[in-house]
Amino acid sequence: MGAPFKARLGANENIFGPSPKAIAAMQHAMSGIWMYGDPESYDLRHALAGFHNVDPANIVVGEGIDGLLGYLARLVVESGDAVVTSEGAYPTFNYHVAGYGGVLHKVPYNDDHESLPALIAKAAEVDAKLVYFANPDNPMGTWVSGVSIMAALEDLPEGTLLVLDEAYVEFAPEGTAVEVDIEDPRLIRMRTFSKAYGMAGARVGYAMGATDLIRNFEKIRNHFGMNRAAQAGALAALEDQSWLTETCSKVSQARARIGQIARDNGFRTLPSATNFVAIDCGRDGAFAKSVLDGLVSRGVFVRMPFVAPQNRCIRVSCGPEDNLALLAQALPAVLAELG
Amino acid sequence: MGAPFKARLGANENIFGPSPKAIAAMQHAMSGIWMYGDPESYDLRHALAGFHNVDPANIVVGEGIDGLLGYLARLVVESGDAVVTSEGAYPTFNYHVAGYGGVLHKVPYNDDHESLPALIAKAAEVDAKLVYFANPDNPMGTWVSGVSIMAALEDLPEGTLLVLDEAYVEFAPEGTAVEVDIEDPRLIRMRTFSKAYGMAGARVGYAMGATDLIRNFEKIRNHFGMNRAAQAGALAALEDQSWLTETCSKVSQARARIGQIARDNGFRTLPSATNFVAIDCGRDGAFAKSVLDGLVSRGVFVRMPFVAPQNRCIRVSCGPEDNLALLAQALPAVLAELG
Repeated sequence: MGAPFKARLGANENIFGPSPKAIAAMQHAMSGIWMYGDPESYDLRHALAGFHNVDPANIVVGEGIDGLLGYLARLVVESGDAVVTSEGAYPTFNYHVAGYGGVLHKVPYNDDHESLPALIAKAAEVDAKLVYFANPDNPMGTWVSGVSIMAALEDLPEGTLLVLDEAYVEFAPEGTAVEVDIEDPRLIRMRTFSKAYGMAGARVGYAMGATDLIRNFEKIRNHFGMNRAAQAGALAALEDQSWLTETCSKVSQARARIGQIARDNGFRTLPSATNFVAIDCGRDGAFAKSVLDGLVSRGVFVRMPFVAPQNRCIRVSCGPEDNLALLAQALPAVLAELG
Repeated sequence: MGAPFKARLGANENIFGPSPKAIAAMQHAMSGIWMYGDPESYDLRHALAGFHNVDPANIVVGEGIDGLLGYLARLVVESGDAVVTSEGAYPTFNYHVAGYGGVLHKVPYNDDHESLPALIAKAAEVDAKLVYFANPDNPMGTWVSGVSIMAALEDLPEGTLLVLDEAYVEFAPEGTAVEVDIEDPRLIRMRTFSKAYGMAGARVGYAMGATDLIRNFEKIRNHFGMNRAAQAGALAALEDQSWLTETCSKVSQARARIGQIARDNGFRTLPSATNFVAIDCGRDGAFAKSVLDGLVSRGVFVRMPFVAPQNRCIRVSCGPEDNLALLAQALPAVLAELG
């Protein structure tokens, strides 16, 4: 529209932003930006290893989860290989799989949840190399317990690897992240500094898994791909867990506020363990799209799921009150216009 | 050795650093680092297009030339495909080619120059998909004219693409960069903000070529791979051409100073169109390695070419006088020790 959005609530970014210590670390790092970053991300990887109580050899740092998903697809997927995901789940995963010639098999959501048992059953049926499962889920914000994931894994076929995308897990209730022997060869976990840590623009993600699997990334990754300042920022962000706690508290309040705004307009929201909330517009995708268009035309950027019946919802990121007040103001006007 | 180097003259970084305006732009960008960078690098790509007088559709921005070489190998090289490069040229190109199953054919340097006619003759012989040629060259610093490249291209076999790595071209004399119809399908050019612009740690490179070829990168690249601050920094660096000019002048003086240091110790240097100088240690690789080890043990980090006879040299990056003074101090001591 040629003008910036007044409220940027659509890109699943964390408007509360990163720790001031992370910002300071990145700004300070600029004096050394003439040097390449450490190709091993040694300091960051060791700090993450300590944080997760694993060995540094269990962690690979990459250019966001997107970059790591691309590397993983390259490592695992050959032309014609079957891969399983949910209908309407993360499109970038599908992009990478298709790019390496994988054949995607999609399983519908079950009651607005990605269903790991159904995904695993499909994997057995099609002899899948990879199964993608996000917990918490994007775009619905729903989640399951880590314990239920480990239970479902008992049925994972031999030769299938679970990609567990935990991009939003820091926002989720305790017990959502899996507790797993890091050398368990059945799964690889993806984490990021883009969401709870508020550094989407820095491009820092990491994968955790068995040593043998993680080692394989060394054969293909862009060794000097990491921005040097981003490495320093992620390290500082990790060390400031009190900021993370505060962010999660603000996000929790914002989720409640979005819920209230929805109810004030006759809508319900889905329970969310992420920094966004799916507002159920109660009718079909066309109606949700018209609500979305009305908000966007008023400068409130939101998005919506791609497929039915999840596309009856719009997805609204959490943010500070001034952002949500714009939503509260725009939504009744949009609905009045729609009649 | 557990201690930082006193002089970091080995990594082909630009110790003179980026424009203060680029640093300021990156520091300023931190207030928006919670947002993803523009996946299209729209502003930067358009500025580069204006700078090079081409269309934005002729430019793809990526995570350094390394990242772009990886994408290019993926686009062009299938298992078993022949690829041609020089023996001792850029190893990361070879890494990516091998990673996609390409078969590397290596042509020796000719009088310390990569020889494009010899590379092209080899390409014809082995039916190569890609030919890699860096101008100016790394690790020797030698160069040829853009005109000679265009002349050599006349013999490029149909179906072979020239990868012209111009990472160091801003340091080179006028006439070193090729002048070419951007839609010429025979070559793709690689440029970077890591060298003359002094932003190695930011990871910003770009490729220029025919629209059809550049468009293919969209099918495979990590769309959100670019660091948001780095995008802003590269834009500011591009706009500060007077800093670039000043840097090139400092580099030129430093090359002369390195030449003087070499001569003071009985060595000659190779002419260089880059920000490093190959000092010919006048004997074999083992001797050059002992000179290098002696410098490194004294805190002066330098590197050397991998293969004979180029490995008779050590490669020293340009830097401010305090760095080069450490070299001037260390080198006689090393040679005295070696006898």
